[in-house]
Amino acid sequence: MKRVLITGATGYIGRWSVPAAMARGFDVHTVGTRRAGAENPLPGELDGASHHATDLFDREAVAGLVEQIRPTHLLHFAWNATPGVYWTTPENFRWVSASLDLLETFHRAGGDRAVMAGSCAEYDWSAAGICHEFHTPLATDGGRQATPYATAKIALQKMLDSYGRQEGLSTAWGRIFFQFGPYEHPARLIASVINALLAGREAQCTAGQQTRGFLHTADVGDAFAALLDADVQGPVNIGSDTPVTIAEVVRTIGEIMGKPDLIGLGKRETPASEPPLLLPDARRLRDEVGWRPGRSLRAGLEDVVGWWRDNQAVKSG
Amino acid sequence: MKRVLITGATGYIGRWSVPAAMARGFDVHTVGTRRAGAENPLPGELDGASHHATDLFDREAVAGLVEQIRPTHLLHFAWNATPGVYWTTPENFRWVSASLDLLETFHRAGGDRAVMAGSCAEYDWSAAGICHEFHTPLATDGGRQATPYATAKIALQKMLDSYGRQEGLSTAWGRIFFQFGPYEHPARLIASVINALLAGREAQCTAGQQTRGFLHTADVGDAFAALLDADVQGPVNIGSDTPVTIAEVVRTIGEIMGKPDLIGLGKRETPASEPPLLLPDARRLRDEVGWRPGRSLRAGLEDVVGWWRDNQAVKSG
Repeated sequence: MKRVLITGATGYIGRWSVPAAMARGFDVHTVGTRRAGAENPLPGELDGASHHATDLFDREAVAGLVEQIRPTHLLHFAWNATPGVYWTTPENFRWVSASLDLLETFHRAGGDRAVMAGSCAEYDWSAAGICHEFHTPLATDGGRQATPYATAKIALQKMLDSYGRQEGLSTAWGRIFFQFGPYEHPARLIASVINALLAGREAQCTAGQQTRGFLHTADVGDAFAALLDADVQGPVNIGSDTPVTIAEVVRTIGEIMGKPDLIGLGKRETPASEPPLLLPDARRLRDEVGWRPGRSLRAGLEDVVGWWRDNQAVKSG
Repeated sequence: MKRVLITGATGYIGRWSVPAAMARGFDVHTVGTRRAGAENPLPGELDGASHHATDLFDREAVAGLVEQIRPTHLLHFAWNATPGVYWTTPENFRWVSASLDLLETFHRAGGDRAVMAGSCAEYDWSAAGICHEFHTPLATDGGRQATPYATAKIALQKMLDSYGRQEGLSTAWGRIFFQFGPYEHPARLIASVINALLAGREAQCTAGQQTRGFLHTADVGDAFAALLDADVQGPVNIGSDTPVTIAEVVRTIGEIMGKPDLIGLGKRETPASEPPLLLPDARRLRDEVGWRPGRSLRAGLEDVVGWWRDNQAVKSG
């Protein structure tokens, strides 16, 4: 029996790994600080999983939980992901500490494979373009300074890899590239554009000439479930290598919503920190994990526009 | 009042930082799992310091201790240093976790400056020679795999640096190069040679053509006290940049002990992992910290030979 403990499973990305892991035959246990209750129900994506309300910073509670569940697999998303906060908060280092202790607890309780979530922010964006897991420099290589978020994620990835090799534990690390989906924080690009258009306001965007690749979060969660269920070791990019400009993405949203005139390209400055091209080399994900996205960018955007419409309707209804 | 909490202060290197910090006017508090007692007395180097028996893996106990002492400075040596074990033990990652939590606890209790102990093992020895803190590649740069020990130390150094910059905490990291001293583990080179000669046995050595620089541990401890008392940020090599071959070192021991014929150079293979040249660029230590060694290599070796003679005499008397 494959039994997975998923952390951060109530989050914007993590929740989608729950039904995907179930579809692959995993007995799914989720953990988070959120208690199920009438006032604060668990996300519907967790239906069928066993949820445990445990604080991952509480070592003793985590040890007790892992001993009780004895998971064969660990899928670790939990982290500080608050926009405007997560890049610099010292909590990044608390998460490294808690993650290392969780890993050791999992391994000692007989776990077989641990997969953790990283980020394309680990790559050195000044040197990046198409990012390869092993060949593209990382943001802290060569004594370079990086954000606390990138520094912490890079450090944890290298330690996870080293721990796994030394202890004979199967491990992998998914570096998440650009994504969008339901429940997205309204301050983030795609959610903010959709919400502006729903409100009849102009979406003020940069010129949008940056090239990226986007995945729907349901596909990101599905890719993590596939990585969990595979035997691939080390870092694996989780993203789309189909290039699209930001301008194309927001124009597609305008089309879908029938409000192309509300797409205000060029109304904001492009930050200097934004590299013109940032795409994953997705060959490990495609060829070694054997995973492909379930939907096109347009289908994903249509889904999310629909979700925000329903969500707005609930709010105002 | 400058008040320092020193971890690993009963160890082979850490103990020497205690009198050195006192000489610089610090009120010194030491922490370790060892309780002072008649059967297991504290090292004499800790005389005048306040010792606290606390397990650094016990988060609550550490938080209580730091709240009680409210140190202005933190000097962190504690780690697994058992020869033959420390390179690969998963405890390296437990130490990263405990060190991050100690750092946060120290900072939250109003600490001003944290200095931690690293190692020349952080450098990529395949590329090394004269190791510069910022220009020499590290062992995990570019996706390279390193030992768990090096991986853990590199990760902690980068996170200490990032945490300090973000939180406005003054931090430094001393990368310890080759050293020797009293209390050295008998399996290590200089202690093993001295003990062989004391027993009238041949010291079977490699050809000893590797070039290194050596410091007496009392000088290493003194250098750390100087780094603690300075305002230098980031990694600083702690070592001697005066080149000497291993053959010269062991021949000097033979001369000092009057038994040059018992020095068996070339009786063992030089491990392939031993780089021919490994020296610190010591300019940051000399010019920015303003520190110089207190004794020559020969004077240091004479001291240690005397210490082993006294120690053997105690054992056999």
